Amino acid sequence: MVTISTPALLTDHYELTMLQGALRSGAADRRSVFEVFTRRLPEGRRYGVVAGTGRVIEAVAEFRFTGDQLEFLERTAVVDRPTLDWLADYRFRGSISGYREGECYFPGSPILTVEGGFAECVLLETLVLSILNHDSAIAAAASRMVSAAAGRPCIEMGSRRTHEEAAVAGARAAYLSGFASTSNLEAGFRYGVPTVGTAAHAFTLVHDSERDAFQTQVATLGKGTTLLVDTYDVAEAVRMAVEVAGPDLGAVRLDSGDLLWMAHRVRRQLDELGAQDTKIVVTSDLDEYAIAALAVAPVDAYGVGTQLVTGSGAPTSSMVYKLVARAESADPKAPLLPVAKKSTGKPSLGGRKWAYRRIDEDGVATEEIIATRPDPALGRPLITPLVVDGDVVERQNLAEGRRLHQDSLAQLPLSATQLSRGDAVIPTVYAKAD
Amino acid sequence: MVTISTPALLTDHYELTMLQGALRSGAADRRSVFEVFTRRLPEGRRYGVVAGTGRVIEAVAEFRFTGDQLEFLERTAVVDRPTLDWLADYRFRGSISGYREGECYFPGSPILTVEGGFAECVLLETLVLSILNHDSAIAAAASRMVSAAAGRPCIEMGSRRTHEEAAVAGARAAYLSGFASTSNLEAGFRYGVPTVGTAAHAFTLVHDSERDAFQTQVATLGKGTTLLVDTYDVAEAVRMAVEVAGPDLGAVRLDSGDLLWMAHRVRRQLDELGAQDTKIVVTSDLDEYAIAALAVAPVDAYGVGTQLVTGSGAPTSSMVYKLVARAESADPKAPLLPVAKKSTGKPSLGGRKWAYRRIDEDGVATEEIIATRPDPALGRPLITPLVVDGDVVERQNLAEGRRLHQDSLAQLPLSATQLSRGDAVIPTVYAKAD
Repeated sequence: MVTISTPALLTDHYELTMLQGALRSGAADRRSVFEVFTRRLPEGRRYGVVAGTGRVIEAVAEFRFTGDQLEFLERTAVVDRPTLDWLADYRFRGSISGYREGECYFPGSPILTVEGGFAECVLLETLVLSILNHDSAIAAAASRMVSAAAGRPCIEMGSRRTHEEAAVAGARAAYLSGFASTSNLEAGFRYGVPTVGTAAHAFTLVHDSERDAFQTQVATLGKGTTLLVDTYDVAEAVRMAVEVAGPDLGAVRLDSGDLLWMAHRVRRQLDELGAQDTKIVVTSDLDEYAIAALAVAPVDAYGVGTQLVTGSGAPTSSMVYKLVARAESADPKAPLLPVAKKSTGKPSLGGRKWAYRRIDEDGVATEEIIATRPDPALGRPLITPLVVDGDVVERQNLAEGRRLHQDSLAQLPLSATQLSRGDAVIPTVYAKAD
Repeated sequence: MVTISTPALLTDHYELTMLQGALRSGAADRRSVFEVFTRRLPEGRRYGVVAGTGRVIEAVAEFRFTGDQLEFLERTAVVDRPTLDWLADYRFRGSISGYREGECYFPGSPILTVEGGFAECVLLETLVLSILNHDSAIAAAASRMVSAAAGRPCIEMGSRRTHEEAAVAGARAAYLSGFASTSNLEAGFRYGVPTVGTAAHAFTLVHDSERDAFQTQVATLGKGTTLLVDTYDVAEAVRMAVEVAGPDLGAVRLDSGDLLWMAHRVRRQLDELGAQDTKIVVTSDLDEYAIAALAVAPVDAYGVGTQLVTGSGAPTSSMVYKLVARAESADPKAPLLPVAKKSTGKPSLGGRKWAYRRIDEDGVATEEIIATRPDPALGRPLITPLVVDGDVVERQNLAEGRRLHQDSLAQLPLSATQLSRGDAVIPTVYAKAD
């Protein structure tokens, strides 16, 4: 694994060739507004969850070209000498505003707005989209799982089923949406997400007997640990687990089989053994539907892996980064003109936008309002300044993002958390420019 | 974005608590064999493609704990002091063998075998699986797309639709499976994958006219460039593109609309304008089926994004890392005993394995043979030593991997490249232990 010095080459080749062209034509310095939005939610989903904004802000702050990176671009003739010189001096001096992490979003929501010279903004397109498209996909799936779990804690355990760095970002996004903890240590190290874990089947198998493994685990991790009871025979393992740890055993974990049936059987057995407070954790290929189906089972926590880190059927968020307005000249005072692609099938609304969520007298959201000028009377304002003239003014805080997500979701109509397929739970409305 | 110093915390919490237990019980030093395999291919797929092995080897070589990482593990009480001391000295001193990158695989194929003390091997589980599960998922999708393209080049353009680091690994995996190039500059920088790119719609929109944009692009990138012709009116843009660049224009790109119909219309127009050699590149939400459907269209290259980096419906590979054998004591001479989990639903075959592909007299693969001892008479040997006693003996070479994949795929029965759903194209057979 190569140590990444800066994120500057986590970028599409064409961002740099466009830069070279724009430097030549003079368009590089035209004041421009790029907007991140999505034309649709994944099939059947009722809301999206903004995640990754904090990582975007960090990445933009570190977006500089090193000597090695410039040498690569020169050697492979990606761009010419004037462009290399421009890149050597690059840092983002424009402004970024957007939805806070944890906020719910809908088709057309202007999730992030990047404003500055055309060249300095276009360069960020790929990286901004990579982060937001990935992290928001995981956050959206996580949010549905947390709702389905109805208060029982969800544990993120998907690291092994996704790219090793995506795993860290995924654990962060899941925590944002209300997961209680993660198995991923780097997410603890880097972002302070609580980490948990005890043992896998290999731990039982490497010992001479299940009893040896349980005794060792209880001796090193205490009675409060979670013993994995499905390596051989579940009933026998549960009996032995309580025998070894006593009735104060923290939890048992089931990782295979018919979890609904097994949870009932294991609960009954634990109760009969006097281990009424011993919890049951289940962890086998769960998604939001499987979690919901276990609502009637005596389960205390859900460990979720593959389906979480692959977005439960929607591994990306289809957000785009579009030029929506630009000045007619490089004069910094030139007015902004709305622009939009006109070809078939992909309508875009030009111009810079503001966004508000209309809330009715009962405190329930009714509309996502997109306006072409600021107007706080329209509802709860959704856009906040993040970077102003190159300086970060609001880093995202994960704990605040968790609260925001809870509040934002609670404000949506009740049908938001239905798992059945449906449309966006509130409509997106474009306010008249009058 | 945090600079990653080492990959040691890209690991599940429970790997470290198992280590702590094993140090206490003495199982830490029991010689153990872990095997990476998958129980099944994604629904309907006929073969898998091994990718990521080279990245695994690099990551294992760099798997050391820094002072900061150890301080985190101490502060958060993940493990105790003796375990921290053990981790401070950690480097992998065991051996790894496996399928080479690019090789096709099937259910049960022992893709990677990790052998050493239990503790040193268990620690690598999460990272090994993250890399192989991700990279192989992308390589498998890429391989099907390359087959569907039937000789026309495929360009990887999916960076914006996946995690920013997954994008780099994805570009590498796609190249391994036969993609011609990528848009991802970091994949060029880090792995030498050829990179390409010209301009997006924003480049047209930031200029006062499409003509200005085309003139600028041709002036900076030459007549051989690819002009994007669907920002406004395609027919008008094609006419202008040839007018600006002349009949030697390299290519035009279509990114929306009915590509089959559009490609025919644009080809006819280009020919009428005398631009018979100008190519047509298409890039709108392609997958292997859309590529196959364009076989009859006058298209010269395919740019593939979302569907590639999300594994075309199978974003992960469901590989597992299982303890299959271990010594009965910490004595380095103690014999290895096969072990396997016995619970419902997830059968595993215990014991260390070798693998061969049986080839018939016509040179066509007929069986994947898994044996419990080496026997070259069984077919083409599939397992090669990669790390021996901690020393890397074979780094993977991307160019060789590309050739290997081509050869390995060509050796499978013809139905391997059918896009319709089916079973694994050859059966996996367990050789009698004699």
